[in-house]
Amino acid sequence: MKLLNVSRVEDVRKKIDDAFPYSWDKYDQVSIEQSLGRIAFEDVFSPIELPEFSKSVVDGYAVLSKDTYGAGESMPVFLDIVGHMDMGKAAKGKVVSSTAIYVPTGAIIPEGADAVVMIEYVENLDENTIAVYAPVAPGQGIIKKGDDVKQNDKVLVKGKKIRSRDIGVLSALGIGYIKVFKKLRLSVISTGDEIVNSFGKVGIGEVRDINTHLISAMAEECGAEVSLKLLVPDDFEKLREAINKALEVSEIVILSGGSSVGAKDMTAKAIESMDDGEVFVHGVAVKPGKPTIIGRTGDKALFGLPGHPSSAMVIFKVFVDYLIRKYYSTSEDIIYIEALCGENIHSAPGKETYQPVELEEKDGGYVAMPIYGKSAAITTVAKSIGYIKISENKEGIKKGEKVRVTLF
Amino acid sequence: MKLLNVSRVEDVRKKIDDAFPYSWDKYDQVSIEQSLGRIAFEDVFSPIELPEFSKSVVDGYAVLSKDTYGAGESMPVFLDIVGHMDMGKAAKGKVVSSTAIYVPTGAIIPEGADAVVMIEYVENLDENTIAVYAPVAPGQGIIKKGDDVKQNDKVLVKGKKIRSRDIGVLSALGIGYIKVFKKLRLSVISTGDEIVNSFGKVGIGEVRDINTHLISAMAEECGAEVSLKLLVPDDFEKLREAINKALEVSEIVILSGGSSVGAKDMTAKAIESMDDGEVFVHGVAVKPGKPTIIGRTGDKALFGLPGHPSSAMVIFKVFVDYLIRKYYSTSEDIIYIEALCGENIHSAPGKETYQPVELEEKDGGYVAMPIYGKSAAITTVAKSIGYIKISENKEGIKKGEKVRVTLF
Repeated sequence: MKLLNVSRVEDVRKKIDDAFPYSWDKYDQVSIEQSLGRIAFEDVFSPIELPEFSKSVVDGYAVLSKDTYGAGESMPVFLDIVGHMDMGKAAKGKVVSSTAIYVPTGAIIPEGADAVVMIEYVENLDENTIAVYAPVAPGQGIIKKGDDVKQNDKVLVKGKKIRSRDIGVLSALGIGYIKVFKKLRLSVISTGDEIVNSFGKVGIGEVRDINTHLISAMAEECGAEVSLKLLVPDDFEKLREAINKALEVSEIVILSGGSSVGAKDMTAKAIESMDDGEVFVHGVAVKPGKPTIIGRTGDKALFGLPGHPSSAMVIFKVFVDYLIRKYYSTSEDIIYIEALCGENIHSAPGKETYQPVELEEKDGGYVAMPIYGKSAAITTVAKSIGYIKISENKEGIKKGEKVRVTLF
Repeated sequence: MKLLNVSRVEDVRKKIDDAFPYSWDKYDQVSIEQSLGRIAFEDVFSPIELPEFSKSVVDGYAVLSKDTYGAGESMPVFLDIVGHMDMGKAAKGKVVSSTAIYVPTGAIIPEGADAVVMIEYVENLDENTIAVYAPVAPGQGIIKKGDDVKQNDKVLVKGKKIRSRDIGVLSALGIGYIKVFKKLRLSVISTGDEIVNSFGKVGIGEVRDINTHLISAMAEECGAEVSLKLLVPDDFEKLREAINKALEVSEIVILSGGSSVGAKDMTAKAIESMDDGEVFVHGVAVKPGKPTIIGRTGDKALFGLPGHPSSAMVIFKVFVDYLIRKYYSTSEDIIYIEALCGENIHSAPGKETYQPVELEEKDGGYVAMPIYGKSAAITTVAKSIGYIKISENKEGIKKGEKVRVTLF
């Protein structure tokens, strides 16, 4: 009975850190319109302050606030209208005691004024006079120059995935181009004598290639791009050749093949036969996904993932995504969903268990239902919205226990 | 004091349903490799059953299960090896009582066998004999033909956003091409005399256009594409002209402009002046975002969003995203994050309040911290990861109360 010498998740990640201590150093300069979903290559600081001038946040009259003190529904204050601000124009006129200038939302606050009274509290008595029915405090109705963003404020953090909100912020500051990480290139090699092209003819005993497509799409979801997809039989020389091709065009090579010890040994040997090739993880204390191997040649990373799609998904999230996030200096936490466990879940002693689940809404919250199924089953993959991690020291999870679901 | 005649969110959505009762009917035929993130146009059913043959899920020996009953650590059962299955090949040989055939994981189960005993429980005594140290039940170690997916099982639901998992499932079934919704085309018109191109020269009193970029990116995040972006001053004829241009190339037109009643009135008038133009919502009982208008000309939808970016974001999520999901028959629920409210939040009586929040981790869970700031502030936009909805009948939320955060 040959057993793999398995490593704990924390130890494996530490080994990944040690093997690939650098961050990815290539970038693309893109317009912010093309930046959605890309990862910021560097911190971005504001070149200006916002707003660039003190402006009104309401439609109303710019006034001296102290003129309005004591105003009320039954005792208005009367002010002379001495001007009218136009949108997008420089200030004209000046507010002095007992006068007011009309300002629409977003217009410059004219000199002298320190507050804006909303038109809802104003009555126009004639063309030149208003009655003000409510007092305003200094600063009310105004956003001051620099109140929102100061010059050199950090407005985008290296490693952040760019979302619509960030694009809004950058456009507000006049920043039209930013540096984003050039996408890491990832190749996927599916191995197995039984694996055939998914869309061609399938003979007896043969199965369609799933992992190439699954892993390629997962890589794209993680912000990498897929540079090469190869399908090779269980043949040492052909595997070596495929790895060499993949190394030429990618930073990360994923080998996905049979879960047997024999198939993994061939993968490990092929990696070790490369120039400067090394396998530093051979077996991980993760359920599912024990026969995972991780190696390097030079600064390129190679992962041997389990052949079963659901196991491959878990190992991809736990280790490949970890490396991609590290390369991209990803600063954001992974958002999890809090849920109640819908069934007792057993865990494997001495292993971190990643239990795929689906989410159901119940009593105003989420219930996480474990998805079981033989590990070769593709329906497990289809239904799993995420997973629950059960640490190696914990003996399963009881029904009703609070859990965190990390989305796939 | 002119007040808008505001409508409740439910009523507004009902009006949207009535105005646009159809679902979007255009599709693209794409390879599954290009389908990531697109929306399924129709249900997809499996053309085959999976697995296509009964196969082993372990490395081991195919046996007759009853031969192994009673086997134990100290009392093995001895079987004759009568063959060896190759991966990807048709079955050869047959298992009869007291015999076994070697099967690697994924290989066909040879005729006669009804279980596979893992090699971990087997000792090879010589080339032709094994000792089996554990019993197996019928079906153990095997996934049967059709156990995973039956022919005509629904494997993709109309309206589902395609993820890596779905691509894995489709490739397993040999489905290379699917129909996805052609992206809805959306135009964004930013209005305001003070609004200028974000990346050009900005004069005194002028402000950079934010909403065109923010809303365009949000539209992309919702699975629409932006066909036209226009910037127009507060001029009725120019606005009409811009709307006409936008209607030619889009299903949805977003008008984003000043939040003042005057600006909204102009937008409403412009919509009503179109052929078959109608404004059916003028003001919504939502905080922020009261001065929202919604209309149609023929089967095209027009939305007048508030000018403030943070309000525009909320109204986009509450109504525009609602229509897009309706058009795409989106079946998936929007995932929310459960959190504890980090501060007392006041709500506006009679209005649904959408309070932007950020999330902090604390004591093994999330705390939702409300983000305040004058509504013109762009930093509010930058920090808000999502929002809490407070229904119109609820008087705010207390610190420590459980809340749902919907991500932007």
